Amino acid sequence: MDIVVGIDIGGTKTKIGLVNKDGNCMEKTYFRTREYPDLDDFLDKIKDTVDDLTSKFPEDFNILGCGIGAPNASSKTGTIKNASNLLWKGSIPLLEKLQERMPIPMKIMNDASVAALGEMLFGSAKGMKDFIVVTLGTGFGAGIVANGQLIEGYGGLAGELGHIDMTIGDGRVTGLNVKGGLEAYVSATGLKRTIMYMQSQYLDESRFRSIAYNDLHGEEITAAAAEGDPIALKAFDFTAKIMGLALANFTAFTQPEAFILLGGLVNSGKYILDPLKKYFNEYLLDIYKDEVKLLRSGLPGKTAAICGAAALIWQDYREQ
Amino acid sequence: MDIVVGIDIGGTKTKIGLVNKDGNCMEKTYFRTREYPDLDDFLDKIKDTVDDLTSKFPEDFNILGCGIGAPNASSKTGTIKNASNLLWKGSIPLLEKLQERMPIPMKIMNDASVAALGEMLFGSAKGMKDFIVVTLGTGFGAGIVANGQLIEGYGGLAGELGHIDMTIGDGRVTGLNVKGGLEAYVSATGLKRTIMYMQSQYLDESRFRSIAYNDLHGEEITAAAAEGDPIALKAFDFTAKIMGLALANFTAFTQPEAFILLGGLVNSGKYILDPLKKYFNEYLLDIYKDEVKLLRSGLPGKTAAICGAAALIWQDYREQ
Repeated sequence: MDIVVGIDIGGTKTKIGLVNKDGNCMEKTYFRTREYPDLDDFLDKIKDTVDDLTSKFPEDFNILGCGIGAPNASSKTGTIKNASNLLWKGSIPLLEKLQERMPIPMKIMNDASVAALGEMLFGSAKGMKDFIVVTLGTGFGAGIVANGQLIEGYGGLAGELGHIDMTIGDGRVTGLNVKGGLEAYVSATGLKRTIMYMQSQYLDESRFRSIAYNDLHGEEITAAAAEGDPIALKAFDFTAKIMGLALANFTAFTQPEAFILLGGLVNSGKYILDPLKKYFNEYLLDIYKDEVKLLRSGLPGKTAAICGAAALIWQDYREQ
Repeated sequence: MDIVVGIDIGGTKTKIGLVNKDGNCMEKTYFRTREYPDLDDFLDKIKDTVDDLTSKFPEDFNILGCGIGAPNASSKTGTIKNASNLLWKGSIPLLEKLQERMPIPMKIMNDASVAALGEMLFGSAKGMKDFIVVTLGTGFGAGIVANGQLIEGYGGLAGELGHIDMTIGDGRVTGLNVKGGLEAYVSATGLKRTIMYMQSQYLDESRFRSIAYNDLHGEEITAAAAEGDPIALKAFDFTAKIMGLALANFTAFTQPEAFILLGGLVNSGKYILDPLKKYFNEYLLDIYKDEVKLLRSGLPGKTAAICGAAALIWQDYREQ
């Protein structure tokens, strides 16, 4: 059986799995990224984890290669460059250093592009040639496919839409210190910040009046919305409005057939998606109206990022 | 000698020329688009003009085909759809109807995409695979090339960036009634509107205090800036600031190697380009800094749009 190692390096967790040709993740595990502040320790931990996973694999297998998704990773240079959610600063030659430890075919790409490949091979974008995957976790990422090809950009860093400025130089600051940057509003973190903002703007009673920022989790905001908490509902509406505007703007860029949404914020379901659809249609130019779909990821949530990373290798076998 | 007919349909003029393989426009002429409010009359006028140009052509020639650039034109449907600067409303089957009159190979595409092809074959983008052409005339258009291919979008209407909203639903209205739309600020028309705005905001003496909006022309704003007119200088600075922010945002989308600027606003030279460079570098994310060029069109101004339209046909011969 042919398998591909998929690795998703995130700010919180590094997830590793073994993925078959249908995009099924057969074995998987994870460890906490921040426990390995030294890059060499981190790479050793990856190698040990892969060895561990493969040694437990019950069937005969052949490893075709290893695909890696990571924030700010460039496929063109094989490096991770100034990722705001990772501890290693500057330009990290991750591909080269990992290949020294694991001499198999290996590719790296930024996490949102990897998610787009995963949706194209295994998920909601099967058969599409023009679509955008939006990842809504700690930050806001985008993987853009046009003409059936990923757009990587001149330096391999296309799609960093979380830091585009939505307010002509005013507004909230992102992790990269961009004022008015999109991900300061539209992301799991952005939603938390908006819970704070709505408490500043309104006097409604709310369960959040007794919860500090650091104790606040996305699931709780969804639960509060389900109970009609006015601060939660206002926060979702506000987030959806800015996101609807952003997706309408992005439509004017590459005119995708669909946006495919994944990540923590999407788990809030109708509380974010219903107002999002309303605002998106309101802001969309007439020439695009009713022609752009909003879809949820077609990959199983917990292994989507691993499957996407594996798609980096599997796509070469699909094309043959 | 092989030649291609290039046609640029604009809100003001329709330009027609005969273009050789090196992108030189050998013969050219134009007529006023608005004098032909009836579509059939307009198409007859195009055919007559092409016949007239070719009958005068001094050498033996072979017409390879006809390329057409027009606002809101879709290469996928061959139509022009709801172009705000043209008189014909709804969806116009221009390609089909013109081909009835001129049975030669024919292609149509939106004017900014056509400009991008022209720059790639004959102009400033020779050899580039990732770049964006920005046209700054009556409106704001963009032709986006990534991975060496034009991005046309699912319905052939990608790149309509003039109507993206820069201000979260507030601000000036565009021709498509988008509040805060980019081209309401950044275009030849946007600059005129900013001359009005600066007169509302400041009390400086200025030659524009005695010129009405309808009598205002771009060349005059440039001339005023050269004389140090404070309203003109403030208007250029303001325009450049919003444009710098927009181009920085666009960089996060496809990470182009260069932006190539053309159209009326660019003719203001250093008055727009110097502050533009300053603001663009200020707004650009660190990961992109010093890696994105701002270039002017490499095509002769008066025939650039004709050469671009002809590139629609010439590109097929280049690829062979």
